[in-house]
Amino acid sequence: MENFEDLGFSKVDYGREKRQGFPEVIYGEGKTIEQIEPIMEKLIEKHGKVMVTRLDKEKGESLVSTFPLAHYDYTARILLYGKPENYYGGEVMVVCAGTSDLFVAEEAAITAEWMGCKVKRLYDVGVAGIDRLLAFREEITNADVLIVIAGMEGALPSVIGGLVQRPVIAVPTSVGYGAHLQGITPLLAMLSSCSSGMSVVNIDNGFGAAYQAALILKLVSEGVNHEIVIS
Amino acid sequence: MENFEDLGFSKVDYGREKRQGFPEVIYGEGKTIEQIEPIMEKLIEKHGKVMVTRLDKEKGESLVSTFPLAHYDYTARILLYGKPENYYGGEVMVVCAGTSDLFVAEEAAITAEWMGCKVKRLYDVGVAGIDRLLAFREEITNADVLIVIAGMEGALPSVIGGLVQRPVIAVPTSVGYGAHLQGITPLLAMLSSCSSGMSVVNIDNGFGAAYQAALILKLVSEGVNHEIVIS
Amino acid sequence: MENFEDLGFSKVDYGREKRQGFPEVIYGEGKTIEQIEPIMEKLIEKHGKVMVTRLDKEKGESLVSTFPLAHYDYTARILLYGKPENYYGGEVMVVCAGTSDLFVAEEAAITAEWMGCKVKRLYDVGVAGIDRLLAFREEITNADVLIVIAGMEGALPSVIGGLVQRPVIAVPTSVGYGAHLQGITPLLAMLSSCSSGMSVVNIDNGFGAAYQAALILKLVSEGVNHEIVIS
Amino acid sequence: MENFEDLGFSKVDYGREKRQGFPEVIYGEGKTIEQIEPIMEKLIEKHGKVMVTRLDKEKGESLVSTFPLAHYDYTARILLYGKPENYYGGEVMVVCAGTSDLFVAEEAAITAEWMGCKVKRLYDVGVAGIDRLLAFREEITNADVLIVIAGMEGALPSVIGGLVQRPVIAVPTSVGYGAHLQGITPLLAMLSSCSSGMSVVNIDNGFGAAYQAALILKLVSEGVNHEIVIS
Amino acid sequence: MENFEDLGFSKVDYGREKRQGFPEVIYGEGKTIEQIEPIMEKLIEKHGKVMVTRLDKEKGESLVSTFPLAHYDYTARILLYGKPENYYGGEVMVVCAGTSDLFVAEEAAITAEWMGCKVKRLYDVGVAGIDRLLAFREEITNADVLIVIAGMEGALPSVIGGLVQRPVIAVPTSVGYGAHLQGITPLLAMLSSCSSGMSVVNIDNGFGAAYQAALILKLVSEGVNHEIVIS
Amino acid sequence: MENFEDLGFSKVDYGREKRQGFPEVIYGEGKTIEQIEPIMEKLIEKHGKVMVTRLDKEKGESLVSTFPLAHYDYTARILLYGKPENYYGGEVMVVCAGTSDLFVAEEAAITAEWMGCKVKRLYDVGVAGIDRLLAFREEITNADVLIVIAGMEGALPSVIGGLVQRPVIAVPTSVGYGAHLQGITPLLAMLSSCSSGMSVVNIDNGFGAAYQAALILKLVSEGVNHEIVIS
Amino acid sequence: MENFEDLGFSKVDYGREKRQGFPEVIYGEGKTIEQIEPIMEKLIEKHGKVMVTRLDKEKGESLVSTFPLAHYDYTARILLYGKPENYYGGEVMVVCAGTSDLFVAEEAAITAEWMGCKVKRLYDVGVAGIDRLLAFREEITNADVLIVIAGMEGALPSVIGGLVQRPVIAVPTSVGYGAHLQGITPLLAMLSSCSSGMSVVNIDNGFGAAYQAALILKLVSEGVNHEIVIS
Amino acid sequence: MENFEDLGFSKVDYGREKRQGFPEVIYGEGKTIEQIEPIMEKLIEKHGKVMVTRLDKEKGESLVSTFPLAHYDYTARILLYGKPENYYGGEVMVVCAGTSDLFVAEEAAITAEWMGCKVKRLYDVGVAGIDRLLAFREEITNADVLIVIAGMEGALPSVIGGLVQRPVIAVPTSVGYGAHLQGITPLLAMLSSCSSGMSVVNIDNGFGAAYQAALILKLVSEGVNHEIVIS
Repeated sequence: MENFEDLGFSKVDYGREKRQGFPEVIYGEGKTIEQIEPIMEKLIEKHGKVMVTRLDKEKGESLVSTFPLAHYDYTARILLYGKPENYYGGEVMVVCAGTSDLFVAEEAAITAEWMGCKVKRLYDVGVAGIDRLLAFREEITNADVLIVIAGMEGALPSVIGGLVQRPVIAVPTSVGYGAHLQGITPLLAMLSSCSSGMSVVNIDNGFGAAYQAALILKLVSEGVNHEIVIS
Repeated sequence: MENFEDLGFSKVDYGREKRQGFPEVIYGEGKTIEQIEPIMEKLIEKHGKVMVTRLDKEKGESLVSTFPLAHYDYTARILLYGKPENYYGGEVMVVCAGTSDLFVAEEAAITAEWMGCKVKRLYDVGVAGIDRLLAFREEITNADVLIVIAGMEGALPSVIGGLVQRPVIAVPTSVGYGAHLQGITPLLAMLSSCSSGMSVVNIDNGFGAAYQAALILKLVSEGVNHEIVIS
Repeated sequence: MENFEDLGFSKVDYGREKRQGFPEVIYGEGKTIEQIEPIMEKLIEKHGKVMVTRLDKEKGESLVSTFPLAHYDYTARILLYGKPENYYGGEVMVVCAGTSDLFVAEEAAITAEWMGCKVKRLYDVGVAGIDRLLAFREEITNADVLIVIAGMEGALPSVIGGLVQRPVIAVPTSVGYGAHLQGITPLLAMLSSCSSGMSVVNIDNGFGAAYQAALILKLVSEGVNHEIVIS
Repeated sequence: MENFEDLGFSKVDYGREKRQGFPEVIYGEGKTIEQIEPIMEKLIEKHGKVMVTRLDKEKGESLVSTFPLAHYDYTARILLYGKPENYYGGEVMVVCAGTSDLFVAEEAAITAEWMGCKVKRLYDVGVAGIDRLLAFREEITNADVLIVIAGMEGALPSVIGGLVQRPVIAVPTSVGYGAHLQGITPLLAMLSSCSSGMSVVNIDNGFGAAYQAALILKLVSEGVNHEIVIS
Repeated sequence: MENFEDLGFSKVDYGREKRQGFPEVIYGEGKTIEQIEPIMEKLIEKHGKVMVTRLDKEKGESLVSTFPLAHYDYTARILLYGKPENYYGGEVMVVCAGTSDLFVAEEAAITAEWMGCKVKRLYDVGVAGIDRLLAFREEITNADVLIVIAGMEGALPSVIGGLVQRPVIAVPTSVGYGAHLQGITPLLAMLSSCSSGMSVVNIDNGFGAAYQAALILKLVSEGVNHEIVIS
Repeated sequence: MENFEDLGFSKVDYGREKRQGFPEVIYGEGKTIEQIEPIMEKLIEKHGKVMVTRLDKEKGESLVSTFPLAHYDYTARILLYGKPENYYGGEVMVVCAGTSDLFVAEEAAITAEWMGCKVKRLYDVGVAGIDRLLAFREEITNADVLIVIAGMEGALPSVIGGLVQRPVIAVPTSVGYGAHLQGITPLLAMLSSCSSGMSVVNIDNGFGAAYQAALILKLVSEGVNHEIVIS
Repeated sequence: MENFEDLGFSKVDYGREKRQGFPEVIYGEGKTIEQIEPIMEKLIEKHGKVMVTRLDKEKGESLVSTFPLAHYDYTARILLYGKPENYYGGEVMVVCAGTSDLFVAEEAAITAEWMGCKVKRLYDVGVAGIDRLLAFREEITNADVLIVIAGMEGALPSVIGGLVQRPVIAVPTSVGYGAHLQGITPLLAMLSSCSSGMSVVNIDNGFGAAYQAALILKLVSEGVNHEIVIS
Repeated sequence: MENFEDLGFSKVDYGREKRQGFPEVIYGEGKTIEQIEPIMEKLIEKHGKVMVTRLDKEKGESLVSTFPLAHYDYTARILLYGKPENYYGGEVMVVCAGTSDLFVAEEAAITAEWMGCKVKRLYDVGVAGIDRLLAFREEITNADVLIVIAGMEGALPSVIGGLVQRPVIAVPTSVGYGAHLQGITPLLAMLSSCSSGMSVVNIDNGFGAAYQAALILKLVSEGVNHEIVIS
């Protein structure tokens, strides 16, 4: 039973790095400081690094005082400890539609960087001002993987999806009101997109999008297992 | 009680032309041929013209055999009898995102024409191929009122709304599947749009959009009641 | 790249006035004072005026202390700086169903005025007391564009829509409880209205309704691009 | 166990007349002819009369051939056998908004008549033509109980509820499309009504509304159990 | 224009008593003290009495200090001023399923009393302990009108509806969690009830149920307009 | 890899009997005759028996012609082949609210019998006629496990749950209309029940309820693994 | 009327122990201290024990100061007074997917213990680390009844349901965000599970799951009423 | 305007191959044969190949008779014409939970093959029989990109997501009933997954998942634009 350690209220998953390529990340929401601290200790002991997401300011600052080598990012609400073991070639472009979406965009950008990816940020290029977006058309088509973040009606990934030949991961945000339904509307809109080659993660889930983007660049770095076939 | 005629199952609204500027239009869905015929007769008698919307093929052809001067449009599922009394200056542009949205686009276009408006059609310019759309940027910015129709994620009105300084009426369609929820998704998306100056009508309601567009051009033709104020 | 200025977290859209007829308006919700201030500065520098919507009292007062020429409206939660460049003929009538809808009605009225329109207010004329509404029938039919605001079941726009030959823009509000679903019910009801010539904007979106109303009066003032056609 | 008879697949409820004032009514939907016939026989034997609701044309005609004294109404989809035992004073007014709502209106009207009530029908007086409705204001205020039926946005009961001092039972219908959600929208709208004194039944449930209206007139006829109190 | 008084933000509806049988009631939610006070003054001046519903404790106590003759009920969150003008025969029974539903039950009971009805309270008789309910079977069948209030699954009105021959007005409450959806579940359940003769009002709307109950007893007291017919 | 057999489009799960106590059951919906036949053959070969659920009439009769020893039940839409290997003590009582719920009740009853349980049926005892239900109170309290099935508002399990000290498994059905939402309403209502000791399965899932009931009686027959503890 | 005691606002149900096998449990949410205290007193007087669920910290500590023999559990938010009268053989295993689900898991565990069951806890074994779960496969298959708790996508019960031949009661939790819809998503997912033998309780309803688990072990202890039948 | 050809009802997008890496694919649903044929002709003329998705049997066979070199797949409902221009290294594994999900799995597999990818199929390995799934653990961890398809509760992608370090694209299907909501439930469940590195496409959208998988393998084949950075 070497793959995890049983703390009773938690079973720390040491096997995740081997199975999934990256060590366990702690989802901070709904956990107390008393629960997070021992899990952090175990993961630092095992992997020399750890990331905690969805951590409010109060908990973040408390943990920094316990782990002085950790860094807390206020916008992304992420606690970081340690550095990437591997760096991957390629670039993840994080695009967001509006200034209010920054907290999700930074969660994505910081996660991808922490997992070893180069990140390029392109913020506040929503479709209501299409010229702003098209001014960056070259940068957009040069990106290797794109994370496209939008609240409101969530139209931005559809437009970008139609401009590129690289995978687009769309992230709806909870920014909006009324018919926006706390993000359900852009979520459903992105899933119904007329653009091909796009997939979607949960509302405000910048972390999840970055995780998949990193897996893609990791695959590029490591190469595929199977040769080209010509049927 | 000169403003309507009581047929028992229906009260034909003769006053609508005076009150609303256009005679009553018959909503065909859920009405039998036996109900539509006498209402048509009364309206033709009174106004010399009538339009029936949401009419299936079978009913449409049956009514044409009774009213040989009527014309039935198979795509728009509309029956027309007579011509506009007034013609309005300006142009309504009807834009749609995909070929599958044609039945709504034609409902809008035919309604607007029948109400006395010039109509320009621009079809199949969805946001996944933004260059197709931008190829018509000049025509789009020249339109006086725009009806923008889209199924799937309903992103097209947001992009067009950001390009023009004229009123945009957005129409979501029932074209899509799964997370599209029979049009609820583009409906909510359009209502959550980041573009200003846009309003929305019911799913597949090309008629309603055209009606409002015609009211706008009618207002332009007739002029406003109130002078410019400088506060 | 003269059409916008890149502040990193925001790309200020200088081109909007040319494209859309009015300069960019700042949506205050979800933005910090630190983000709003530089955007305001840039827009004032460029256009000599700016409006910020959805601004809570605390932020509003803070910004007024920074921009002493600005005015903050507590009911509408809007910050205004500067005056309209153009004034348009015609009158926007803002009608609301109940006293509790005032915050939306004032958002609409102040926006329309700031965009150069004459506004007439008619408040607390909900359909449960139809005589109150009909007492103003002449004023209502004389309006050039109508913004009709209602919470609860959202019936008011349907009644008014049947009385006038001018465009009606309906605004559902979040005023109600239970089956009202924070405004989803009047939103869906207005979209399902039996009145023709009506379109709908998002819940509590007085700003959006006013914006479209102003575009309509602007079109009247400037005239249409296309002549009358008689087919 | 004299209160019901056990047919295995059904327990015919003989006690309902004593408990509830009217004998059991058969809900036809989802029952086979083989199930309905023996239940009808038992109820006719016991009470000399029976009503079957929600019966499609094919089953209706089949049952009429078995029970030649029965009458099948094609609009209301109701089978009637026998006559009321008691007649109640007062008048139930059945009002509906549009011609397409007739199938619900007739279900209500026929049920109320069969339960011993005088019924007055007022059809096609939707709020988009408020003058048509107000032309009947005197008849409406004279009714003793009102059943008000509407599809689309379901606004009619709110307007009528504000005109009368008698109980209004609102019935939403499945007539509409898109945002109307098969009647959920007018249902929620009626429940959120700003008019007092209104209650609501299920979508298309003309039967249920008539049943409650009849209970009210029955109470009037029989008088209350408790004297007036002055506290 | 004697039927209402225009305060600008509010049009006080003096005609409501004549039209609807009871003077206007003030819905307190979303109104400020500054708005409620002048409306109260006008209504007291005109009718000598007024009721304000949905009033939180703070506003309630503030208004009592301004209107010392008023009484504020903490459970029902209602402010009362004055007494009924008329008293009606018959008894409204207010039944509720659980102790947590009391705030709705008292809103109903106090409203009905204030409108001139005798009220009997039967609380905490939910269907999970059917013997508690049946212990009061005689009282229940003796009631003239029943208001039945339940949260959770909302089953109580169905059981009571099957026991009586008097009108049952069902009120779902917001008491519950999870799948209860803040009262939407019992609301939909009550609308889908297998019991006949039941109608439903909005979630937590004790006021609305009492209002309709009072209209029914008022009708009994005043008698119907139309004679018995035997067709 | 002895635990299943790979047919390509299907992996027949031979290990299920050992793991779960009963062999695999075939869910017929969405499978073609060409897919069901080979799976049936494999399961009969391995276990000497098989059950196919959710099988329409046409497929059922076709399979009976292929497997003459099989029996197809038209009400439950189940195909049976073979007999139980084990019989368990105790009795499953299947209770349903209305005659229209029979198709679900029989799915439950036949499944439980086929799994080796004694079944007692009690049909058409909905809460609108509580006396019919209470006439069987002794039988109900004597049952060892209860499956309680209801459409409409789904109130029956709450009432029965309050009468017994045995596990109640509630099954909502798709019988109803309008606010019933194809069974979502009774589903949510049962989950929100005020009765303790109740759990719920999917809409119309008589099979699943019977499966769990059989597991409970199997546990009784086999006895528990752990002794009584007194802490 | 010996089966309950009428406190006016509450009818304490003394008959519940006889009818349902366990005395009444107090649902603390929405009840005031002033309401809970007398109910507790009555139940302690009658049964010598009582449990209060869904009690916040403040109320819990207040009640402990009034009833010093009571114990308040901060994680489960439960107040306990007294001990089980009977102990049952067998073991309830409480499994949860993540550390954030602990508050529900402990509600279940403490309830089951208080009702006389032996409980085994297995926490933080969500399906994303399937090896952690399978490391406990033997313990899982040895359990007599399983309560399986999960938030997020709620997949854990499906996996465990496929591993055991004992009843599985699934509990969705409100732990998650966005598309998780406060627990509606895992609730619906568990109801749609492909595993047989599973039933579901309301979101966060650890109490309800434990109650049914205890009823099952009670049935095992007491034995069934009906003999084995071989048809 | 060389990038598209305007057929009036359709603008054939020749630029898509350059922009997005693959030529336009025709979405067959809602298009008539008369619309599909000329678009096919244009695309074959330009690219020598074309794919039409969501094509029913009748249209499929009709098009094959017009284009004899085309092949129609009955399970996937896809029409293929021509072969891939490029073949990519790596392997897409298409995994599905049940036999009823085959129509989606084949849409994915055929699309990926047609876009030049090697595909490995692993069907009917749903989580209720976890041993069947784990028997293929090595194959699963060896895949380069995984498309994981499931109806019902949609748990399979979460389990697989926890086993691999390669991108997982999850596809919910419309296979299920009741609480499954035509696929909305597994869609929401997959979006709420506790596994990292997963993204989701629309219900039944095997095509979209395959498209993104092909873009990932294309990126691997072509290599990234940006070098490794070590910050």
